[in-house]
Amino acid sequence: MTPRHDSTALFTDQYELTMLAAALADGSAHRQCSFEVFARRLPHGRRYGVVAGTDRLIRALENFRFGDEELAVVAEFLDEKTVRWLADHRFTGDIDGYREGDFYFPGSPLLSVRGSFAECVLLETLALSILNHDSAIASAAARMVSAAAGRPMIEMGSRRTHEEAAVAASRAAYLGGFTTTSNLEAVRRHGVPGAGTSAHAFTLLHAGPDGPDEAAAFRAQVDALGVGTTLLVDTYDITEGVNTAIEVAGTELGGVRIDSGDLGVLAGQVRKQLDALGATKTKIVVSGDLDEYSVAALRAEPVDLYGVGTSVVIGSGAPTAGMVYKLVEVEGTPVEKRSTNKASRGGAKRAVRFARPTGTLVEEVICPAHESAPEAPGLDARELMVPLVRQGKPVPGLPTLEDGRSLLADGLVNLPWEGLKLSSGDSAIPVRFAGRSSS
Amino acid sequence: MTPRHDSTALFTDQYELTMLAAALADGSAHRQCSFEVFARRLPHGRRYGVVAGTDRLIRALENFRFGDEELAVVAEFLDEKTVRWLADHRFTGDIDGYREGDFYFPGSPLLSVRGSFAECVLLETLALSILNHDSAIASAAARMVSAAAGRPMIEMGSRRTHEEAAVAASRAAYLGGFTTTSNLEAVRRHGVPGAGTSAHAFTLLHAGPDGPDEAAAFRAQVDALGVGTTLLVDTYDITEGVNTAIEVAGTELGGVRIDSGDLGVLAGQVRKQLDALGATKTKIVVSGDLDEYSVAALRAEPVDLYGVGTSVVIGSGAPTAGMVYKLVEVEGTPVEKRSTNKASRGGAKRAVRFARPTGTLVEEVICPAHESAPEAPGLDARELMVPLVRQGKPVPGLPTLEDGRSLLADGLVNLPWEGLKLSSGDSAIPVRFAGRSSS
Repeated sequence: MTPRHDSTALFTDQYELTMLAAALADGSAHRQCSFEVFARRLPHGRRYGVVAGTDRLIRALENFRFGDEELAVVAEFLDEKTVRWLADHRFTGDIDGYREGDFYFPGSPLLSVRGSFAECVLLETLALSILNHDSAIASAAARMVSAAAGRPMIEMGSRRTHEEAAVAASRAAYLGGFTTTSNLEAVRRHGVPGAGTSAHAFTLLHAGPDGPDEAAAFRAQVDALGVGTTLLVDTYDITEGVNTAIEVAGTELGGVRIDSGDLGVLAGQVRKQLDALGATKTKIVVSGDLDEYSVAALRAEPVDLYGVGTSVVIGSGAPTAGMVYKLVEVEGTPVEKRSTNKASRGGAKRAVRFARPTGTLVEEVICPAHESAPEAPGLDARELMVPLVRQGKPVPGLPTLEDGRSLLADGLVNLPWEGLKLSSGDSAIPVRFAGRSSS
Repeated sequence: MTPRHDSTALFTDQYELTMLAAALADGSAHRQCSFEVFARRLPHGRRYGVVAGTDRLIRALENFRFGDEELAVVAEFLDEKTVRWLADHRFTGDIDGYREGDFYFPGSPLLSVRGSFAECVLLETLALSILNHDSAIASAAARMVSAAAGRPMIEMGSRRTHEEAAVAASRAAYLGGFTTTSNLEAVRRHGVPGAGTSAHAFTLLHAGPDGPDEAAAFRAQVDALGVGTTLLVDTYDITEGVNTAIEVAGTELGGVRIDSGDLGVLAGQVRKQLDALGATKTKIVVSGDLDEYSVAALRAEPVDLYGVGTSVVIGSGAPTAGMVYKLVEVEGTPVEKRSTNKASRGGAKRAVRFARPTGTLVEEVICPAHESAPEAPGLDARELMVPLVRQGKPVPGLPTLEDGRSLLADGLVNLPWEGLKLSSGDSAIPVRFAGRSSS
């Protein structure tokens, strides 16, 4: 098999390295540059984006090293001088950015990478891969969590996405406010709380030559996992399944899961049935192609926990955040591209978000990094970019996953009402470019 | 940082392990089972799916081992007996499946996993993660390659998907018929041919205090990489960019890339301009949010190479293939679930695809595994399921990535004409369930 190895250096497009070679040859590789990550727009109709992946990027950066294996690959198309340069390469620049769990809007400079052209250009692909993926998932997750209006949610979409993407998706969904994950590697690697119920296969397994035997399956599960477990009741007939579940487990049964049919109608029926059986505390877990809209549609139904799979791990229709990594400054001079629809705003930036004293967000203002932060009378201002990496090293005390989760939860409380709507609309708050040197 | 490690055992949903615990406790874990991977439907309007990921799955299976780190995670919620069982666990069952690069249709039994319930149930998440992701990408890639009608395509979408998903996506796109990839880890790990051009950042880097200096950027690139390189000509003004490119590189310049604007119009203009300058062999590379539809729309234009990013790595609107992993047989008895819309067809199966003597596919017939293969007079029959794993070990001489790529290329020639349409429609060929014991 292909051995796994630690280096992240080849999560990189070939052209980053050929550009490096050309820039080393003419000396421009050593010019001091600022690159910026931003999104030109949000996915269609979305009102906010959620920054996620920053911490994973900083960790990946620590392993961005060209060892013998990596050098052998790039030596196929690079000159010897460039290969030698890569062998010694360590990122030594600075990175600032928005905190994980913070909002971003079109144009928000959510990551700023500064250093020589050589060391910054190499990070384009890795930075975008991580931020585009994780932010897409966290942004979708936050909408689902809003729609659930306080009810807990389990992320169970691992089987619908690449096996490693699944781990990152679990983390991003948790950042977005999900309560637990089914993904055990996310438990191990990121400390996301794990959860799980049971699958139809387990009930089918207990079918014998005489046909289905749901009671045997339930008994086995309760015996092994206790009455606090959640039994899957829709393998054959839901009403019979619920009766059998309570017969086997008693009225202290933890939960029943419904994974098919009209979940709203069934949740109501099953709640009545459970209550009539005396199982008034047995919870109802629903799953089966849920997204933010179907979760919202279940608000009035007696649902206790949502299991969400496919839609969260594919970003609910927007599996990538569309962020770009652009050179904005060379040796202190702003630069920008002038092709149709792709103009970028040159110059390193700072960003401030204004809120009313009640906490409600008003607007985000972006200005050149060297200017003092804008002010607005009567409004509270928060600088959005924080130091993440200094001279190639992660800044001590970086925000944790729990910090990001709290920041987002607080942020959602402070969005203007319009911003929480699931329907298509404009950004929750406007982003304004300001400052003397801005266009 | 979080150390990477080799085990794939935790790419698994928690409930697989709690089901295992319950099944070990009541002895049902040792029942001989058949699980099957299939898709209930193709993504909306698609006419065929392409099987991909099988080889990655077989490799991942070899590392499906619970070491100390994995056991520590599962010991948090499993009993001691189950943890001990996992410590010694190796998959010892058999796997058959469709070849990578073969088509699949709704109901095609594209993977059959057989062994004890315990060893088979544990593989659900891993198998689906890999097959759902890779097949989604390969299926989209094949449509794009068809649309390109023989022109080469470079996959350059790494930045738009998770960094590890990007590597698998490069492999799947190559399987689907793409010519090259920008992803260096895919070059290293899977031997996909690498390629690359240049980014706007490189041109912007050469801007000085007096403004843009595209000529300096082009000169640096040509000096370092030779005149065979491809210059990106749309950073400032395309017409000037093309003039400058030929001035700097001469008429032997390998290619120019256009990454913005109306690519069809611009390709025509740039071709005329290049020809007028004497650069008749300089190729035109286009990129910028291309998908199968925009590629098809460029058929009449003088484009030599397509660079496709976002759309291929996100499966062109269908980022997951929607495959499921279902228990179909226990101790020789077919089992199936009976919830609305989720009924599965019980029993282990075999699959045969019929073609006319000209090669054109006619239909796919699925019947119980223990019955002899169906026949059809005057048609050629091909058994679709091949042995992949025997007693836990990969079968020697498994098809390579190149084998899969050839199989698909041949397959696309043999699809009925309707099947190659990009527009929404039915499956290219019907799938029929046959056999005495089928319902």
